[in-house]
Amino acid sequence: MRTSLGRAISRARISSRVSASRLSINASRAVLASQPFTEIGNNAGSRTPAISYRAYSKQAKLTKDTYHTERGDYGQLTSEDIAYFKSILPENGVVQDKTDLEIYNQDWMRKYRGSSELVLKPKTTEQVSQILKYCNEKKLAVVPQGGNTGLVGGSVPVFDEVVISLANMNQIQSFDPVTGILVADAGVILENADNFLREQGFIFPLDLGAKGSCHIGGNVATNAGGLRLLRYGSLHGSVLGLQAVLADGTIYNGLSKLRKDNTGYDLKQLFIGSEGTLGIITAVSILCAPKPLAVNAAFLGLDSFEQVQKTFGRAKGELSEILSAFECMDANSQNIVAKYTDLARPLEGSHPFYVLIETSGSNKDHDDAKLEKFLEGLLEDEVIADGVVAQDETQLKNLWQWRELIPEKLGHGGVYKYDVSIPLADMFKLVDDVQARLEEAGVVGDSEEFPAIASVGYGHIGDGNLHLNVPLRRYDEKVEKLLEPFVYEWVSKVNGSISAEHGLGFAKKNYIQYSKDAGSIELIRDLKKLYDPKAILNPYKYV
Amino acid sequence: MRTSLGRAISRARISSRVSASRLSINASRAVLASQPFTEIGNNAGSRTPAISYRAYSKQAKLTKDTYHTERGDYGQLTSEDIAYFKSILPENGVVQDKTDLEIYNQDWMRKYRGSSELVLKPKTTEQVSQILKYCNEKKLAVVPQGGNTGLVGGSVPVFDEVVISLANMNQIQSFDPVTGILVADAGVILENADNFLREQGFIFPLDLGAKGSCHIGGNVATNAGGLRLLRYGSLHGSVLGLQAVLADGTIYNGLSKLRKDNTGYDLKQLFIGSEGTLGIITAVSILCAPKPLAVNAAFLGLDSFEQVQKTFGRAKGELSEILSAFECMDANSQNIVAKYTDLARPLEGSHPFYVLIETSGSNKDHDDAKLEKFLEGLLEDEVIADGVVAQDETQLKNLWQWRELIPEKLGHGGVYKYDVSIPLADMFKLVDDVQARLEEAGVVGDSEEFPAIASVGYGHIGDGNLHLNVPLRRYDEKVEKLLEPFVYEWVSKVNGSISAEHGLGFAKKNYIQYSKDAGSIELIRDLKKLYDPKAILNPYKYV
Repeated sequence: MRTSLGRAISRARISSRVSASRLSINASRAVLASQPFTEIGNNAGSRTPAISYRAYSKQAKLTKDTYHTERGDYGQLTSEDIAYFKSILPENGVVQDKTDLEIYNQDWMRKYRGSSELVLKPKTTEQVSQILKYCNEKKLAVVPQGGNTGLVGGSVPVFDEVVISLANMNQIQSFDPVTGILVADAGVILENADNFLREQGFIFPLDLGAKGSCHIGGNVATNAGGLRLLRYGSLHGSVLGLQAVLADGTIYNGLSKLRKDNTGYDLKQLFIGSEGTLGIITAVSILCAPKPLAVNAAFLGLDSFEQVQKTFGRAKGELSEILSAFECMDANSQNIVAKYTDLARPLEGSHPFYVLIETSGSNKDHDDAKLEKFLEGLLEDEVIADGVVAQDETQLKNLWQWRELIPEKLGHGGVYKYDVSIPLADMFKLVDDVQARLEEAGVVGDSEEFPAIASVGYGHIGDGNLHLNVPLRRYDEKVEKLLEPFVYEWVSKVNGSISAEHGLGFAKKNYIQYSKDAGSIELIRDLKKLYDPKAILNPYKYV
Repeated sequence: MRTSLGRAISRARISSRVSASRLSINASRAVLASQPFTEIGNNAGSRTPAISYRAYSKQAKLTKDTYHTERGDYGQLTSEDIAYFKSILPENGVVQDKTDLEIYNQDWMRKYRGSSELVLKPKTTEQVSQILKYCNEKKLAVVPQGGNTGLVGGSVPVFDEVVISLANMNQIQSFDPVTGILVADAGVILENADNFLREQGFIFPLDLGAKGSCHIGGNVATNAGGLRLLRYGSLHGSVLGLQAVLADGTIYNGLSKLRKDNTGYDLKQLFIGSEGTLGIITAVSILCAPKPLAVNAAFLGLDSFEQVQKTFGRAKGELSEILSAFECMDANSQNIVAKYTDLARPLEGSHPFYVLIETSGSNKDHDDAKLEKFLEGLLEDEVIADGVVAQDETQLKNLWQWRELIPEKLGHGGVYKYDVSIPLADMFKLVDDVQARLEEAGVVGDSEEFPAIASVGYGHIGDGNLHLNVPLRRYDEKVEKLLEPFVYEWVSKVNGSISAEHGLGFAKKNYIQYSKDAGSIELIRDLKKLYDPKAILNPYKYV
């Protein structure tokens, strides 16, 4: 039988000690429901399911129409161009079939859609170079595309840009088990890289819900943050080198396998997070972490965000070097996941906030002891109201589902997504303020008449990163107008970032000034001009 | 009495367990000898002594004469210029006295010397901006200077460049104990920052021998690596933001206090490691690590570099998340430290290699248990020959002396220093090859007739970073010609880096092509042109 920490607490006070075995979860209840969606991407045997792609029954409106965008002064694709690309690429490297083009033209949220008539799938960096050299000469606009799992419309065309998919560049080039340095093509799927590494006793220093579909090149190009940044740090630290092709076809060979190299400006950094606007990343060298020998997870219920902050402070102190994730989810987020799955909820009763804590270490006994002591303390001091600890790998996976399924389950009828960095204390105040604003305007509520379902918050507490989502019954311009620029103004007032990890893409191109001053924006534009004077790389986006 | 691990090993085999208490070091023997040098810089109460500056009894030859450098087409300082600087700076902000200028003109190795007649010491970023705007208009060359502890001649003038010292910008601006984010002026001395943080339960994520003198702005400008990169990662990951003044006086305001911010190119990265050639860093925002509650250190003697590598592999697996340093020193390095100090050697007998391992964690019992088990295993399997474990803070400091005193003690009569990244297996092969080459030419040996004393190696095994040093009795061009470009060619052949952490400065400006291809060098030059078209920032250096 499941014994919650909540029930254990009275015994704990008598025995002054909660044994780890009593902090259990009923595995039989917590089974992952079968997915109601058509999935694409490689996610066989995944700990984290790939982002589920519904069959493209509904098509998004064309981005250019929704957002009244004007086409830039770019060349138009001719049959001569296509003949050239066919001459340099393998047979399956040129996609023109209308149906086949669809998944490249639309993002997974079905919010953005372009009308490209050509997808190129090079196999080598040299082919990428040839393509870009040609496109630059003809001033043909291009969109680099990885797993197309981005959340800001950055990876799909706006008009008829040529899509350059990295999907066929998917080889692991080398791995050194002494140093932990992996070199791989940009198109390797994150989960494939991670599975490969696990067999060698290592892990990829990045993990995120879309791992079954996203590419490591795309991860680097967008400076993905994910679930374990708290532990393994930013890609700016762990990426050791990369290879990229510049707009004019020049190949930047920076695929260093060295942990330290102070010879010249660290050029690779420019490509990390530039979302394909300075060059196309074709390969990555990255420092990987040893696979933890022990992984624990606890799922906690808390009565207030103040208690969440207290728990975080104590986790940093007491779990310290073994703390690998600290995720917070509000009641709305969990209620929506519960509504759309058959998963048994980890905790009985309802709480305003839930926290998922993960530890990763090299000694199971030590980690268990640290976690047990930490949780005991929280119970004693009534910082947490309830909680469970995973007793095995299956339970651990199930607990993670309650965090990782949120993005997907919130997206049923469309969703407005904001990914912001704000000072910890203010984090969920934004969620409340948005809810109040939508309520006041009469656009949010429990029944069908309201376009918006709720203001929902969850995110990476350890990184000061909140995901504010407004799940919808249907897209409604009125809701969007209430949210933007309101959310950006709110974030700007507290000196936050309007994009913590998702990037700018198309969605936030016009809002960068809420996070960067005019001088910085000018410096960014200067760099863009230097690297891509004809602006053929991922136009209409970023800045 | 001191019981070495070496002696403990036979008992260990009987008892099958070496108790931590038996792995002890005789504290009374291991006392730090009084320093024979005149020291400058703030190193009161330091765990690590500041780099010792000998009184400037000997002056280096002028760099321009030693290296036959030609002065660039820069403006000559006039009395009008000086009047302007006096008008914008506080009274002590303009240094012109010949004797006072000396320490700004010469590097601490007494290898490089310039002849600047003006040092400016601004108090604010706005003053730095005014200075650069003026210098850019008049095309006056400038050298930014922090603690002047660099090892490649990057922080001193070559000719008459105006020195801009950040020493008077030394305030901590803010610290947030919830997030661990410190914001401080560039001129704050590393050790002062660390001491401040320790009082708040945190540490600076960087530590190096020069901590008592070096500035955090200089650390960031040179992308310093140091002793704990293995644990806390590169500054490219931990620096969250910075403020810098560009050549034309434009202030780049990137002093973000956010852990995550994906809005626009990560401009701060360009300034990290650009050694003052793109702008002058005036303030830094950095993510600091919680102060470890338990720190252990073990000092080991090993019979071969193969055993060192084995020890490193096992340390990564068994000490994993608590491993905070893994330093390797060869016999020569330890013999030289022993010669110039009264310190008692940690181990009896002589070994070809020594390793200093440090662990940092949150639970002393757990860390002790992990370290003990790890060392027991090494003894059982005869991977290590001898070893001691520090039993208290004093012993720990003493063990560290054997690593940290090397750079200073090697520098008595001058030293050629190389700081390279090479694949682990080849690391000490370079040291041997250099020794053989110098022997063959008859320039190295034990008596006064030989200009070179020995080829010496030590460094950060965890980062693949070797410090190859050739300590001298006197500088000799013949030795230099035997070493350069030989060392660079050697490193280039194994795809290493000719500067792992020290940077390029003046010393390696002409050797970057051994680590970077022509395309990368061109991209670096393009950036330099974009940011500093008149090339007034730190000329004659870098690239």
